Amino acid sequence: MIQVTIIGSGNVALHLIKAFKKKAEIELVQVFSRKPETVIDFVNSDQIIADYNLLHPVDLFIIAVSDDAIASVSNQIPFQNQLVVHTSGSVNIGALKDKNRKGVFYPLQTFSKSKAVDFKIIPICLEAENKNDYKTLETVAKSISEVIYHVNSEQRKALHVAAVFVSNFVNHLYQMGNEICTENHLSFDILKPLIQETANKILTLSPKEAQTGPAKRNDTQTINSHLSFLTDENQKEIYKLLTKSIIDHGKKL
Amino acid sequence: MIQVTIIGSGNVALHLIKAFKKKAEIELVQVFSRKPETVIDFVNSDQIIADYNLLHPVDLFIIAVSDDAIASVSNQIPFQNQLVVHTSGSVNIGALKDKNRKGVFYPLQTFSKSKAVDFKIIPICLEAENKNDYKTLETVAKSISEVIYHVNSEQRKALHVAAVFVSNFVNHLYQMGNEICTENHLSFDILKPLIQETANKILTLSPKEAQTGPAKRNDTQTINSHLSFLTDENQKEIYKLLTKSIIDHGKKL
Repeated sequence: MIQVTIIGSGNVALHLIKAFKKKAEIELVQVFSRKPETVIDFVNSDQIIADYNLLHPVDLFIIAVSDDAIASVSNQIPFQNQLVVHTSGSVNIGALKDKNRKGVFYPLQTFSKSKAVDFKIIPICLEAENKNDYKTLETVAKSISEVIYHVNSEQRKALHVAAVFVSNFVNHLYQMGNEICTENHLSFDILKPLIQETANKILTLSPKEAQTGPAKRNDTQTINSHLSFLTDENQKEIYKLLTKSIIDHGKKL
Repeated sequence: MIQVTIIGSGNVALHLIKAFKKKAEIELVQVFSRKPETVIDFVNSDQIIADYNLLHPVDLFIIAVSDDAIASVSNQIPFQNQLVVHTSGSVNIGALKDKNRKGVFYPLQTFSKSKAVDFKIIPICLEAENKNDYKTLETVAKSISEVIYHVNSEQRKALHVAAVFVSNFVNHLYQMGNEICTENHLSFDILKPLIQETANKILTLSPKEAQTGPAKRNDTQTINSHLSFLTDENQKEIYKLLTKSIIDHGKKL
């Protein structure tokens, strides 16, 4: 059994707590949280602490806090030579303080508090400084997920940028679709099967093969008619830039 | 039984042909195609024509051709007072010639030749000039789909613009994610669960509620680090514009 302590109580921390709790291989020892009310439903109150001096030594400390707090949190762990990892896609392993052994445990997924996730299919990207620590991380990761990748800090950064494109930006485009529907007294539900199919297509086709639409066909008439339909300047600018990008990509082929 | 003839052999035409063929309520009479080889697997060769004068009168002519060909194709149908519809999201019902009764039969989905679709869940947006014709269209639509909407030409245009945002543009962002992965020797597969979850989230949360990421948090440090990571000017521009849009939307709340 591997003893794990989680520092943090945001979305990633909460989903990890829930996932670990169900696993016999993992003993969740403590949760460090300044807002005990956010985790009280999932761990016993005597396991929740808000003072670093109350931390027990464990096999693995997982720091799941905002990116800019990682360095200072890692500095406040009152031990030496322990395995300490963070869960961030964009922070280098070197941000963790040298007094402990470092690693990264990055679940590549979009977490919302109110939406359950199936951890089994979430890729977990691991990095460690030595083989033994990597093995520990691998055992912990395999207890909750079937998809484990070894990803170094530079690659993880690339992955995080790519994730912003395919998830954060994509969701924002959903929001624009929703706005356009609302303005025209249409239910956003009409678009949902299209959204699902667009996401499903790239499971069997490359995005390049899956591309359709007026920009792909360089259909200037439809593009212009869409641009004169749009009244919101921000939507117009996004429409223009992404259309230009699709057309330029087509020319490269 | 309703007799239907399809004019065209592109993606929409092909998927309609395949869907109608399985339905007892529909008799697919003829397919007009200048490229018989694209449809020969699905209809008998004596049903395929490439001369408008060989068209038989039927209950419903479906013109599934590129937007800018719709008017001229509708003009070449050698009949009067027949029900003639197009399948386009962006073309007004008025583009069809007045000599026949007009309508629109717009399946809101992204069709690729090599990817099968489940027509049952595809919303079909219908428009007609009179009740009887609308009823005919409804019967035909219901034979292949469970989701039928009455959508006028102005609303359909809005829907088509929204569809470009949530499907064509979204797919292009998938392509950028793919490119970033390839440049950094990472498999695009790592991103697929994230892509699926991002599309699934909006089935239960509004896109506004589902938004996550550095722009949503106004996390300037991560945003700047991503921008200095990106070397492709086009990717950089898209990153900047969508990030700015997410931040501005956050301020509006």
